[in-house]
Amino acid sequence: MKIRIIGLGLIGGSMAIDLKKRGFATKIIGVDNNSQNAQRALDLGIADEIMDMDKAVENTDIVVLATPLKAALKILPHLLDISTNQVITDVCSTKKSLCETVENHPNRKNYIAAHPMAGTENSGPDAAQENLFDNRVIIFCDTEKSDNHKFALVEKMYNVLRMKSIYMNSQNHDEHVAYVSHISHISSFALAITVLQKEKNEKNILALASGGFESTVRLAKSSSSMWTPIFCDNQSNLLEVIDTYMNVLSNFKAAIVAKEEMKIDDMIIQANKIRKILN
Amino acid sequence: MKIRIIGLGLIGGSMAIDLKKRGFATKIIGVDNNSQNAQRALDLGIADEIMDMDKAVENTDIVVLATPLKAALKILPHLLDISTNQVITDVCSTKKSLCETVENHPNRKNYIAAHPMAGTENSGPDAAQENLFDNRVIIFCDTEKSDNHKFALVEKMYNVLRMKSIYMNSQNHDEHVAYVSHISHISSFALAITVLQKEKNEKNILALASGGFESTVRLAKSSSSMWTPIFCDNQSNLLEVIDTYMNVLSNFKAAIVAKEEMKIDDMIIQANKIRKILN
Repeated sequence: MKIRIIGLGLIGGSMAIDLKKRGFATKIIGVDNNSQNAQRALDLGIADEIMDMDKAVENTDIVVLATPLKAALKILPHLLDISTNQVITDVCSTKKSLCETVENHPNRKNYIAAHPMAGTENSGPDAAQENLFDNRVIIFCDTEKSDNHKFALVEKMYNVLRMKSIYMNSQNHDEHVAYVSHISHISSFALAITVLQKEKNEKNILALASGGFESTVRLAKSSSSMWTPIFCDNQSNLLEVIDTYMNVLSNFKAAIVAKEEMKIDDMIIQANKIRKILN
Repeated sequence: MKIRIIGLGLIGGSMAIDLKKRGFATKIIGVDNNSQNAQRALDLGIADEIMDMDKAVENTDIVVLATPLKAALKILPHLLDISTNQVITDVCSTKKSLCETVENHPNRKNYIAAHPMAGTENSGPDAAQENLFDNRVIIFCDTEKSDNHKFALVEKMYNVLRMKSIYMNSQNHDEHVAYVSHISHISSFALAITVLQKEKNEKNILALASGGFESTVRLAKSSSSMWTPIFCDNQSNLLEVIDTYMNVLSNFKAAIVAKEEMKIDDMIIQANKIRKILN
């Protein structure tokens, strides 16, 4: 299978590694407008060759658009413009605006909207790793608008990446990822800023980090080029869940102000329910 | 060395395992007012014998008080009452109120206030594990109020647990742990409650958890019996940092409402500074 990957970062690079290693891709042609990243991907063996986008799309089976959202919103319509029979799929963390952008495109059926729920706080080709997607979830959106055979091919690709498929419409997708994933990033970014503001002694931050801070703040290492566009794109869903989060914090604060032990106990016991769902 | 551990949970149990394995303790005598926990600690080989508290304190070298804070505040003065030459040390996450409680006790010099910065979100004897403390930090407080030789003995014990010593007065300790560790727990408990409120479909929570939620919410599995007393005890420091956290969240919200991309970028870049400190 001939695979082209546009954007050779954490997600695109990790896909390249496993798709080749597992025999689904014969050769990985990479596209990256950052020439340093492109060279690094070649050096690391993630891509076998680098091409310009338009040339890469000719003579291929699947084009994976693995750039941050902002670039994807511009590139996707262009890819559909120049696509003939190629399958175009993306990996972005929000789906509604992308699907709306190409809603009436004559080649809409060539596009498979997909969101592989995997990642780390790192980015760039050096962050790419084997087995990143194993046993994680791949969300396909608005599949009724895609050609059946093309969808089946992309699903097969994600089967090779050992992902479990789930299906949502793009609007529901954006709501659900705001409610679970995007709010986690906001809470972690805010925690990092708070701790940096309050604890002026960096040695103390490092010394005390093992008291739980380290894992809670992991996502705060994530890049602005990825997350700022997501937060703006998913604004209304995200604001809704930020409000809920701030209300819960206000309730915690009020209970601590009043030293209402039973109320604090109740809130913690409520939070503990997450253990049963995740374990 | 004869060691007695009061409270055979995650911390007390993990200490028991390594202190015996590494030859510092010849025999671990455990004390636990929960008879099920006591039996489980015997079954797991964490404790060699279970005794009543008063009997356990006779004829020993070091008593480690490893109960939650609320019990420790009651037990510590009693241990000092009945101690003759034994060293009494605790592991609680706040130190000021404990130190104040025994400030004028005639045997105050027998007490070493200590806080090993290690743990997991689990509790009870089954959560005890080897090597929990390796390369973590042990904070000793108000050491000038402790007998030098007794302090040296406790520090030696924590050396055996491979911990790095730092020293603070108890008031500073409580501030710094609020600013780094306790706020992390509040943010994580609040995140769990928020996600459970907003995302009614538990299957979605599990499916979407790999998008960062899983690590950010880990601390929300922690027990109320440990954390409610800590939050109440460290009330003023914690309220201060909760206010900062809520302000930062308000700033995020305002920037997202206005879709001010540069402001959101700036906040994320500010948060990213945590990477340099922790890596």
